[in-house]
Amino acid sequence: MSSAEPAVASDEPGSQFLEEIREQPEALKRLLEGQATFAAVAEEMRRREATTIRMVGHGSSDNAASYGVYAFGLLPGWTALRDSISLTVYYGADLDMSGCTVLALSQSGRTPDVVEYARRARGRGAYVVGVTNDPTSELARESDAVLELRAGAERAVAATKTYTNQVAALGLLAAHAAQRGDEFAEDVRSVAASMPELTRSLELRIGKVALPFAYAGRMFVVGRGVEFATAREIALKLLETCRIAAEPLTATDLAHGPVAALDSLFPVWAIASDDANLPAVVEAVERAHEAGATIVASGSAAASVPFAQYVLASPETPSPLLSPLLSILPGQVFAWALARARGLDPDAPRGLSKVTLAR
Amino acid sequence: MSSAEPAVASDEPGSQFLEEIREQPEALKRLLEGQATFAAVAEEMRRREATTIRMVGHGSSDNAASYGVYAFGLLPGWTALRDSISLTVYYGADLDMSGCTVLALSQSGRTPDVVEYARRARGRGAYVVGVTNDPTSELARESDAVLELRAGAERAVAATKTYTNQVAALGLLAAHAAQRGDEFAEDVRSVAASMPELTRSLELRIGKVALPFAYAGRMFVVGRGVEFATAREIALKLLETCRIAAEPLTATDLAHGPVAALDSLFPVWAIASDDANLPAVVEAVERAHEAGATIVASGSAAASVPFAQYVLASPETPSPLLSPLLSILPGQVFAWALARARGLDPDAPRGLSKVTLAR
Repeated sequence: MSSAEPAVASDEPGSQFLEEIREQPEALKRLLEGQATFAAVAEEMRRREATTIRMVGHGSSDNAASYGVYAFGLLPGWTALRDSISLTVYYGADLDMSGCTVLALSQSGRTPDVVEYARRARGRGAYVVGVTNDPTSELARESDAVLELRAGAERAVAATKTYTNQVAALGLLAAHAAQRGDEFAEDVRSVAASMPELTRSLELRIGKVALPFAYAGRMFVVGRGVEFATAREIALKLLETCRIAAEPLTATDLAHGPVAALDSLFPVWAIASDDANLPAVVEAVERAHEAGATIVASGSAAASVPFAQYVLASPETPSPLLSPLLSILPGQVFAWALARARGLDPDAPRGLSKVTLAR
Repeated sequence: MSSAEPAVASDEPGSQFLEEIREQPEALKRLLEGQATFAAVAEEMRRREATTIRMVGHGSSDNAASYGVYAFGLLPGWTALRDSISLTVYYGADLDMSGCTVLALSQSGRTPDVVEYARRARGRGAYVVGVTNDPTSELARESDAVLELRAGAERAVAATKTYTNQVAALGLLAAHAAQRGDEFAEDVRSVAASMPELTRSLELRIGKVALPFAYAGRMFVVGRGVEFATAREIALKLLETCRIAAEPLTATDLAHGPVAALDSLFPVWAIASDDANLPAVVEAVERAHEAGATIVASGSAAASVPFAQYVLASPETPSPLLSPLLSILPGQVFAWALARARGLDPDAPRGLSKVTLAR
């Protein structure tokens, strides 16, 4: 396979989105330059015994938070949850948040209800950490500490490098909380080093995989455990950039109802990593295949997925916890190629703006 | 309006599903017969200071758990979360669960990974409460206490009365935890009393509302706060019984990406209750309308939803926390009517069985 990148003119629709997909390894390396701050924040979390982790964010930020549940559960053994913003901001529930760390995720640092949640959580005793690209933002001012994402300017509306840096940031903080931060950072570096080759090879192959889906109207994206975040983020990219009604499901969700909706016009994308959830993902795919669905398999264990018509494998990572940093790439590159095939501009989906101020 | 029920022969497809929709008020009254047990379990939760609530379940049970987040947050002011089953059961994460109550939700009491989660959570110090229709089930045996749903035999595959009883059970337990159990039970009784008339009037009107969606392939169901559970459950009914790719979204989720996928062939169902989240729901509907989507509005504030082509209002409830017990009904009756219009049997969706043993 040639290692040349397909040329994309910088004024072509989707060129920003693709450029930012390609920038992800560099963005990850920049994130690691802030290591000392991650160590200090983790130390403060331990000192305060603020070991219940409440994560808030919308869209891609909320998808990254799904990963945080596993990173904190598996590394320091702490309980992390994607908290309800409504409960605190709109209903004004009086929750005791002592013993809690809030991780408020917002690319711009300007998402109004995330900022308001941070303000209130501080008043209720939480240690509030803003996780943002903008350390001068309103969110940063409302936080006790800031973890800077350092993803750099993201011009395409659909997030790519911000998402991967959020995932890595949550993993890195969880690892520092478990006093294994240096090891995790080393693993991120090694994963980042493998990204350019994976991205290039995906760009070269993706046309043939994406084109058959030119008229697909709906899709399920199945992942479980650490890869549920990936399933949510791939589904969101397909919704935003390709206008497919793509719904993320855990492998078990699929069996509890949605499988009844499948047929040969309702494809299923399965993310299979080589971890304890693989048998459940394989079982879900078998059921989807029985119902006549076309199967796309990705992830490090994509080759273990039965009946897959399309396989977009990613390399093994030093530990299964790092796998989502690579398994998102096939979804991003697929969304770019399919949006182009459908005549859409993935840089500027209709009806969206980069900073969402909707409540 | 006539109060006669449309006649449905008992061997007609969908007759069980409809029968069970109609049985919901009786099922709710039976649930209240177990009041003393709810009071005792709540007392034990307080005695043990087990005030972090971890809820687990799949499908409709997990949808009901979305309601639990608000019931516990608003009544006793406790943190409740829909916990990851994978983390504990498949990854074997070593979480400290002292100070936690587990509410394990399973209609049959036989869902394998919910039973296994209950077993492990007990070993990790949690107070484990099984919430099930079957007090002799394996789940009941693995639990410290059992809250019996008393929904009665549910023969249609798609849950209806089990779901409403799960919602009411979570509310009732949260109310007892806040020492307001009697008041909540009284409110449930009054809501149950208003159900037969609402169900009847929906049955009479629903044909004209459902038929225009005979060829719909996809839909977003938007709800927020206490009604997010309703949005999830309506979407699941539409997937299971009508084979529509229906995705539940919070009002804010919609603005953060998915709105880009909407057009005139992609309708949006909005659940609007008269509470602090109403402005966000209205704002989301305005965006969906701009994108050309057909709007269905339901809930107690359905009349406040702009641009709605179809309005399925439910009556006000004694408090907004009770609203989901009524706002689910339009979705259930719509799913019944639309499934029939599409030539499907909502009693027995293809590929599903009543007790799901998939992992």
